[in-house]
This record gives sequence, C-alpha cells and structure tokens, in this order.
Amino acid sequence: MTRLLIVGGNAAGMSAASKAKRMDPELEVLVLEAGQAISYSACGIPYQMEGLVESPEDLLVLTPEKAAARGIDVRLGHRATKLEPDSKTLHVQTPEGLESFAYDRLLIATGTRPRIPFAGGDLPGVHTLRHVWDGEALLADLEGGCECVAILGAGFIALESAEALAKRGKTVKLLHRSDKLLGVMDADMTDNIVETLEGLGVEVVLHAGIDRLEQEGDQIRLHGAKTHHADAVLIATGVGPVTGWLHDAGIRMDARGYIHVNERQETNLPDVWAAGDCCTVKDILSGQAHPLALALPANRMGRIAGENMAGGSAAFPGVLGTSVLRLGDQFWAQTGMTETYLAKTGMPFHVQVINAHHKAGYMPGDGRVRVKLLCDPDGDLLGCQIRGPAEGALRIQAAAVAVQHGVKVQQLAETETAYAPPVSPVTDPLVVCAMQLAKQLD
Amino acid sequence: MTRLLIVGGNAAGMSAASKAKRMDPELEVLVLEAGQAISYSACGIPYQMEGLVESPEDLLVLTPEKAAARGIDVRLGHRATKLEPDSKTLHVQTPEGLESFAYDRLLIATGTRPRIPFAGGDLPGVHTLRHVWDGEALLADLEGGCECVAILGAGFIALESAEALAKRGKTVKLLHRSDKLLGVMDADMTDNIVETLEGLGVEVVLHAGIDRLEQEGDQIRLHGAKTHHADAVLIATGVGPVTGWLHDAGIRMDARGYIHVNERQETNLPDVWAAGDCCTVKDILSGQAHPLALALPANRMGRIAGENMAGGSAAFPGVLGTSVLRLGDQFWAQTGMTETYLAKTGMPFHVQVINAHHKAGYMPGDGRVRVKLLCDPDGDLLGCQIRGPAEGALRIQAAAVAVQHGVKVQQLAETETAYAPPVSPVTDPLVVCAMQLAKQLD
Repeated sequence: MTRLLIVGGNAAGMSAASKAKRMDPELEVLVLEAGQAISYSACGIPYQMEGLVESPEDLLVLTPEKAAARGIDVRLGHRATKLEPDSKTLHVQTPEGLESFAYDRLLIATGTRPRIPFAGGDLPGVHTLRHVWDGEALLADLEGGCECVAILGAGFIALESAEALAKRGKTVKLLHRSDKLLGVMDADMTDNIVETLEGLGVEVVLHAGIDRLEQEGDQIRLHGAKTHHADAVLIATGVGPVTGWLHDAGIRMDARGYIHVNERQETNLPDVWAAGDCCTVKDILSGQAHPLALALPANRMGRIAGENMAGGSAAFPGVLGTSVLRLGDQFWAQTGMTETYLAKTGMPFHVQVINAHHKAGYMPGDGRVRVKLLCDPDGDLLGCQIRGPAEGALRIQAAAVAVQHGVKVQQLAETETAYAPPVSPVTDPLVVCAMQLAKQLD
Repeated sequence: MTRLLIVGGNAAGMSAASKAKRMDPELEVLVLEAGQAISYSACGIPYQMEGLVESPEDLLVLTPEKAAARGIDVRLGHRATKLEPDSKTLHVQTPEGLESFAYDRLLIATGTRPRIPFAGGDLPGVHTLRHVWDGEALLADLEGGCECVAILGAGFIALESAEALAKRGKTVKLLHRSDKLLGVMDADMTDNIVETLEGLGVEVVLHAGIDRLEQEGDQIRLHGAKTHHADAVLIATGVGPVTGWLHDAGIRMDARGYIHVNERQETNLPDVWAAGDCCTVKDILSGQAHPLALALPANRMGRIAGENMAGGSAAFPGVLGTSVLRLGDQFWAQTGMTETYLAKTGMPFHVQVINAHHKAGYMPGDGRVRVKLLCDPDGDLLGCQIRGPAEGALRIQAAAVAVQHGVKVQQLAETETAYAPPVSPVTDPLVVCAMQLAKQLD
C-alpha cells in the first residue's frame, strides 16, 4: 500500500488528501496536524468574534471523523520536527512522545503562523488569530471589566477584527506603524478606511509602530513612539511560514523560509510536494514567485498536489491575489497588480479611476463605487480595484475573469453586462471604467 | 453644412446624436421625436410606479435644453410619416402640420411600441408602458376607489409592474397565456417566480390568455378562457417595431418589420442608418439576427451609428441578450443561450446546474443561489443563468465577460475570484458550476 503523508490538515492539506483519495481509493492517506482542528475557516474568525457566527465549531469544514469517512486518517497534536528525505522518514512530536513516520510521498502544507517582531508577545493577554478557537480566547480576556483591546496591524485580520470587537462593545484601538491601511490596494482606493473604522467606533492611531510589550498590573503597556495601554492585545502584523523544522532537509526555500515549488507543486526533493501558504506561488501576470496567504489559492494548490501525488498530472496556473475586505457595509476588492507595484517596477502602464453609481442614479440608497483599472500599452489588463457596497464591489469577480484570461481592455469595454435599475446603471461601472481606459490607448 | 437627421430621440437616437456631434462639431444634428420627451429610462417606470422614484421627470436623462447645449437640435411632437430615399427627404407630421426635412445622412431609431393583439386595447383604463409618463397615467386610473389592476404578460415590464403596483397597495392580478413566466430563462430557473409574486401580494393566473376587452360600467371585462374584471388593465404582452411608415421606402426588414442592418448599422439604403430596438441585431454566439429590446445594446448601436455617420468606422460586435429581473429581494439573471433554445437547435451541448451559497455557509441570512452554465463539447461557453439575492445574481457580470470573450469553461473553473465570508464562499458559485461542467468534458 502506497502511503501519502500530509503534514498540515487545513485548506491545502485536506484538499490534497481528499483529492488524492478520490483519485485513487487504494492509497493510504495519513494527515498529521499539529493543532487540535483540521480544515477550518480562519477567515471566519472575525465574524465569529463579532457574534455573527455562534461558535468556533461552526467554522469547521471537516472533522477527523468526517475525514475518516472519506478514508483519510487524521492525527491531531502531531507536529513534524524533522524530515529525512533520503530515508523518507518524518520525525514527529506526538501527544505520546516522539515518533517516526515512513512515507512514499510527502506533502508539506504547514501554512504560516503570525510573526511577532518584538518582545512581550508571549505575555498573558497578548493574542494572535490563527487557530479556530483563538477568537474565543481573545474574547475571554475581554470579559469582566477588561474592555480595551489594542490591535496591531492593517491587513485583513487586523481590520476585520477591529470591526468585530467594536461591534461586540469593546473599546478598540487600532495601531499601525505607517499611515497606509490595507497594503494590497492603492492609497486612492483605501483613503476612506480610517473614516469607515472610526464610524464603526474604532480608534485608529497611525504612525504608531510598537517595539515592546510589557505587563503593567492587569494591563499591557505598548511601547512605541507613544505609549498605549490595553487589557488585551491582538497582533496581526504579518505571518511567516511554518518551515523552520525543514531547515536541514535540503529543501529549496526563499530567504524567509517559503518553499519553492514548480507548477506541479513539487519541491526539489524527490517525492516531496508542498502546497498552501507555506509555499511561494507564481504571479500569473508578472511570472514572479512570492508568498500569498489566501484560502482559494491554498485549496487549489492542495488539490493540484493531491492529484499529482495520486499519479495525475495537474498544473497550478498561478495567482492574481484576488481579495475583498468588508468593513461595515463597505467593501474593498482587488485583483492583479496595483499602481503602487507597477510604479516600482518601471513597467509602462495606463490607469483609469472612475466614481460611478453601481445602480441607476435615480434609485434610492447609496449606490456609489470607485473603480480603478490598470493595463499595459497593448491593452492587456494588469489589475482592478473596486470599493463600495457589496453589490458594487462584487464586480471584482468579472474583473478577475477578464484579468486572468487575457480579455483586453477594449473587449471589457464592449462587454454586454446585465442592467436593471436596482443593481446596475445601463452601462456597468466596470465597463465604463474600461471604456475610459481604452480611450487612453487610441 | 452636413445635416444628420435622426428619427427618434431615445436611447439609440440620442446616443448617436451625442457621439456624432462629439466626433465632428461642424455637423448639423437634428433629432425628430414623435413623443414629448427624449432619452428617458423606460426601465425605471416600474420603480417610479412603486414610489422608489419620486417623479417621471427623475427618469429623464436628457432634455431638449440639455441636448441644445451639446449643439443638438431636438424637435418634440415630430412624427415621421414617409421616407423618400431617392430625394433624401423625410415627411413629418409636426404640431403645426406636415413638413418635409432634407437630410444628408439619416438615422432611424424609432424603437418599438407595445403590441395589442386583440380588440378593446383603446378603451379608457387600458394602458401600456412606453412613454415616461405612462406609469403616472396608470396610477391615476387606480385612484378614488379603483384599486384592481389586471396585468397581461410575463416579461420584465409585466412582472416588475406587478410588484410595483402591489407595493403601492393595489389589487394586482397577473394574467398570462401559458404557465411559463420570464421567457428569456429556462423553466428550472424561473419555477419560483409565481411563488415570489404571490409573496409580494400578486395574484397570478396562468393559462389565462385574453382575446378581448370590454367596458362594463366603470370596469373593464377581460374575456378569455375565463372572464376577469379590473379597474384598469396593463398590457405588456410584447412589442413591435415602429417602422410601418417605412413600408414603401424600399428598406430591408424582416417579416415583422424589424430593419436589417450590417455591423456598421447601415441599412440597404444609401446614407440611411438604423439603430436600437427597431433593428434586428446579430447574436454573438449563433450569428443569427433577431430583434432585442434592451437598453445597453440600443445605446451601443446608437453610438456606433453616430460614429459612422460622422465619418468614423465602428462595428457593433452583436449581442448576448444579457439581462436581469428583480422581484422583491430576488433576482433572475442570464446571458447567452438557454437550454430551451439549444435543445430546439439540435446543437450538442453540456449543461450544469448547482444550488450553492453565495457567501460562506456559516454566515447569517439567506445566501442561496442557483447557477446554470451551458457549453459546447469543446468547452466554449454558451450561456449562464443565475437566480438569488442581488449579490449572488450579480455574478452574471463575470459570466457575461466569460461568455462574450471566449473564456472556456475550463478557464472559468480556474478563475481566482475574491473571497470573504460575507460575500462569497471560498470558491465562487459561478466557478464551482464551471468546475462541475468542465468535469463533464473530461
């Protein structure tokens, strides 16, 4: 019996396990997970903290029992400590002690963990959000008169958690080292985020880099340019790959420890694949490999790896980094490259920004969106950013189709979209933006 | 001075006028409009009846005064009666009597008018919705104790008006000759429309074809398989082209009187163009020409005609017939061909229907959509239909991009869409449907 050993039981790992088992039911598929849950929606944790989702268990997509019903053997509390590729042996810290596992084919899908780039990250009351119960733990620290939480960071987790905790009635202070929130989008698309957060009751402090945390009585003192106090701290300033245990295995990684893979998700080691957030992924537009922590690409890399580990021949096309953030009733969505990125590369590009209605102008309610499109001098689309209410921002799905599949800006400008006064003006705002951008190329 | 004469001042006519004047400000652009308003949102009339839009004037996009500021001369109440292409003369009924207009280049953009295929359509209390004030006139007939309106038809205008009048507190009876509402979509996508209408307070009577209307006291009696009574009647059973006045001009039309044009919007007559609902349009997928009464294609045909009449060389790519209907908080959207149509042609095709969440399954609120995708055996997309709440149904814009621009189903299945729990599951429902459809082709 051929053994597929999978290290890490979240998006990429379980997608691989399921795909491989479906491809070849004869395979032994064994998943080792360091934590106490597999296959959960980490992206749902802020909504669970907010109270929209009742319990962390609602975020579990699979359990070891459900996986077993698919013929997948899952072991919780199993943390890989060392890989010996020559003997095809994995050393593992289990609840019962050290154990060795032999494999025929190995998948590394250990993901990332939050980086805490200063002292004091291990104090009581200091949190990160990684595991499915981490939101509950943070909320628990804010019970009983402890109501003030400081959140460090300006990405999805920091911003969504700020809203969630403010809506739970907590006093929330968002501290960020620079004045640019949501780094995946350009400043002209995110310049209303501070105001939006403040409208949700979040205090935002910019240029507030923190370099040390200290206990002070029942509180935590945050040291930086200024000093802040909080009952609890959420650190969401970034992540790093969980690949330290691989450093002497001879596996090719970048300087930060992200594993290099080819489009078949193969590492440089024989019979060793890697998938998900612990890998670098190829950007479809630039061809450059970089880390990316997003659920959909992680699932897909896992599925590609699973198919290939079961004898198939699948290739991962790469990523655009498509994403969307919600705060209140507003959304910020993007796909592909930003103007900020393009300006740095020195590549020639054209850019168009429009402010438009996303429904007929005479219909009631706020129907404003801002759309930004980028293309190269040949009309090949390079990126799109949209902000506005959900119905407006969801035009990003159409932009993603266009950017990923080589639809030219002149073609996008001619797209016959659906129109009805409650959901669109006669010409969709994405198409209007494309029409204006196309004119720059005439 | 070269004179562009434009017959019809709505979507196509005014788009052409504006485009031509922008292209060449030296042109004389003269628009003759039979009615009393130009360039209004006919699609907004149901929402104005519902009370979401305060006044019919709010639906006016342009007025003769605004057009004059663009250098366009608009004459209201000017109805073309005869075209003499050899002498390049147009005969016109004006408020002051008959008048002749010479032209250098002529655009016919007279649109359609409702067809009333039985006797009694001219009785007081019997209405159609075509002009911008027609909704007000219908509402006026339902004042003062007259509260019951019968609506004949099952297309956009009939269905949207049924909701609008029910929400205005009227007693609404929708009568339709068959049991299939919203003919532009397949039955498996529309089988919840009757229930939706009933939930909005509309009485729906199927297999209720009407063949005669009669006055009976203050009411109208509707004769068909059964007899119905109403204080007012709205007929929305279909339209026909306003081209009867052209029948001896030698212009090529189809059997119903829709004008044949090429992709430059040229008719067979020298220096005579046509655009908008009064033309046939080429279907992008089938290559067949057919009538289509939708605002966006009408605008575009007008713009193409205007550009070419000003000496340009623009081509209209054709249509998919992309559309979306709202009833309550539900939407029905489609693009391209339906299964019903494909089955009739005998073309080979594959079809996939899924029921899915359009946001994360654990998020509160109704997040269900049904997605249907059709492709040919090579994976070329042929059509898409979606029903569900606005945020779900708006995925049709992404489908329209894919269908129109030759994105294969296998490519759509790999699209990296945006994911956040409030607006999407990890894999977008459109992408999930494409993945399943692609599997049929393996």
